[in-house]
Amino acid sequence: MSRFLSEKFASLAPYVPGEQPRDMKYLKLNTNESPFPPSKKVIEVINADNAAYLRLYPDPTGHDLVEALSEVYKLPAENIYVTGGSDEALYYAFLAYCDEKTPVVFPEVSYGFYPVLADLLGIKAKRIPLREGFRLEPEDYYDAGGTVVIANPNAPTGRAIGLDAIREICRRNENNVVVIDEAYVDFGAESAVRLLPECPNLLVVQTFSKSRCLAGARIGFSAAAPDMIEDLVKLKFSINPYDLTRLSIDAGAAAVRDVEYFDECRGKIISARKYTTEALRATGFEVIDSMTNFLFASPVVMSGEEFYLEMKKRGVLVRYFGTEKTKNYVRITIGAREDMERFCAVASQVVKEAGK
Amino acid sequence: MSRFLSEKFASLAPYVPGEQPRDMKYLKLNTNESPFPPSKKVIEVINADNAAYLRLYPDPTGHDLVEALSEVYKLPAENIYVTGGSDEALYYAFLAYCDEKTPVVFPEVSYGFYPVLADLLGIKAKRIPLREGFRLEPEDYYDAGGTVVIANPNAPTGRAIGLDAIREICRRNENNVVVIDEAYVDFGAESAVRLLPECPNLLVVQTFSKSRCLAGARIGFSAAAPDMIEDLVKLKFSINPYDLTRLSIDAGAAAVRDVEYFDECRGKIISARKYTTEALRATGFEVIDSMTNFLFASPVVMSGEEFYLEMKKRGVLVRYFGTEKTKNYVRITIGAREDMERFCAVASQVVKEAGK
Repeated sequence: MSRFLSEKFASLAPYVPGEQPRDMKYLKLNTNESPFPPSKKVIEVINADNAAYLRLYPDPTGHDLVEALSEVYKLPAENIYVTGGSDEALYYAFLAYCDEKTPVVFPEVSYGFYPVLADLLGIKAKRIPLREGFRLEPEDYYDAGGTVVIANPNAPTGRAIGLDAIREICRRNENNVVVIDEAYVDFGAESAVRLLPECPNLLVVQTFSKSRCLAGARIGFSAAAPDMIEDLVKLKFSINPYDLTRLSIDAGAAAVRDVEYFDECRGKIISARKYTTEALRATGFEVIDSMTNFLFASPVVMSGEEFYLEMKKRGVLVRYFGTEKTKNYVRITIGAREDMERFCAVASQVVKEAGK
Repeated sequence: MSRFLSEKFASLAPYVPGEQPRDMKYLKLNTNESPFPPSKKVIEVINADNAAYLRLYPDPTGHDLVEALSEVYKLPAENIYVTGGSDEALYYAFLAYCDEKTPVVFPEVSYGFYPVLADLLGIKAKRIPLREGFRLEPEDYYDAGGTVVIANPNAPTGRAIGLDAIREICRRNENNVVVIDEAYVDFGAESAVRLLPECPNLLVVQTFSKSRCLAGARIGFSAAAPDMIEDLVKLKFSINPYDLTRLSIDAGAAAVRDVEYFDECRGKIISARKYTTEALRATGFEVIDSMTNFLFASPVVMSGEEFYLEMKKRGVLVRYFGTEKTKNYVRITIGAREDMERFCAVASQVVKEAGK
């Protein structure tokens, strides 16, 4: 830290992204990326002809991408804006809708970026404990007294709530915004986008990093009432108007329109998830039913950390979160079927040796 | 504006990017882009093989790009960090080094984003008038009482100050950070990067959008003492760690390493600038000597706005800033030689008709 840094950031602890080690080749099941390449339609737009146009600025409204989203989600363009990934969208949401008077309210066990954003912005954070088995009880968010942020499905637990619950949370917080972070929604939960007409305080955030196989292209979008989109666009244009690259706007539009490939990829993930859940349970793991592209599982016979370290030694990376509530668990990204077969074989060996 | 937006943003006026009209094909000399495509080495990395890896997250440290910059600028990697364009880097600089106690100090006529950032962050802005002929007087920034931000060369004036002046401004503000925004430095001014060993409070910000022909790829970098880089990286990792796309990291590294093409492009711009300056002066324009890829010029016989509107009717876009101090001027991006010949012909006709 330099002596010039504003005092308010003296104790800021930044988000720690999943490790990307370079020392050897791992089976990487730690950052919830897709095991499949992007759609062929996406790969077609990444070419020399389009690269030549990189000399020009992108359209800061991302018009072509917004139009594609508008078609596929059957939502007017005025309900949508796009960002360079969904973390950026979450930042604008916290910035717009939280302040000294309005705290942020989120589940105690959830995406690790929420407390970092609250801390950075100097916003009070109210963390609501999950119930038994990491279950999110919608009633715990009624009259929450601040901006509610819920990942649905939740990370790293993989559990989802239904649209009725979200509608009721919106209704019971009518003077505050309810942000639903749908990073993982395409793997089995239902998107709250369809609640927009009845919920004027709802903000839905999605990413292209998981189900659309484009983590490396940095694309996110948000859907909300037009007046809220206007708020968020005003912030984006006051901080970083040109956030998406030209190629990402084109790639994103192509990805959204290739519905067939999107369905094929998520179908494969859902099927590999079922296989992995059953295989791990058969080996003695406690596995939470997941609606995402990852599993939250406990090896039971050893701690999450021990399991993580043993797997890493054997060339398999999973994610371990060292908090009190999650220390017995690891988060395992669902890869392709053959990846998961290898994972299950190694995991089974590790717990067998630990159980001796 | 929604009723949920934090009060502090009620009167925020966002930055207005240069217009990108879609109604007809213009000769676009309004957003300071390069008329030349990116280096062939850049175009080679934008291919189907690399597109397939877009399924994976980028390296949030942008290691390969930092390494290329480190080589070419002969600067240790610990003095560098990269961002998704330089606007993002400016945001982190304002956020890190300004607050209620530390205002920001910048020239009254300069890059329009500075007052927007100050407004957004609720920071007091001290605007120092330029001297006669838009000249920046270094002494006006001694003991400035806040974080100093100077675009060098300045925009939209095109005038530059020397390294001796920058060194002295750093020395005379030893308890505050001095940000030198070098968006246009490669077209004739000298980079302050080489002052880093003697100036522990210096932060240099550069972009790939102008001299490296990559506005569409969103790449910027900052150079400063390692403890300041640490501050800024901490903020980046608390807001948006994955800001650069995988393709932009690779494209940026390839662009930096192709020194020959870089020199060829900026040489052509400098030569077209000389041609345009002389041609406009011969037509009666007042033209400020420019060290950038644009000219700041007054048609004299008509206002900047009238000239802008007349040129637009004829299919040529220039940038007009409607402030009191700049209302007689327009900013003209330097394109390829043939673009500038066409521009000069149309401009000459417009002022001749106005002078009748």
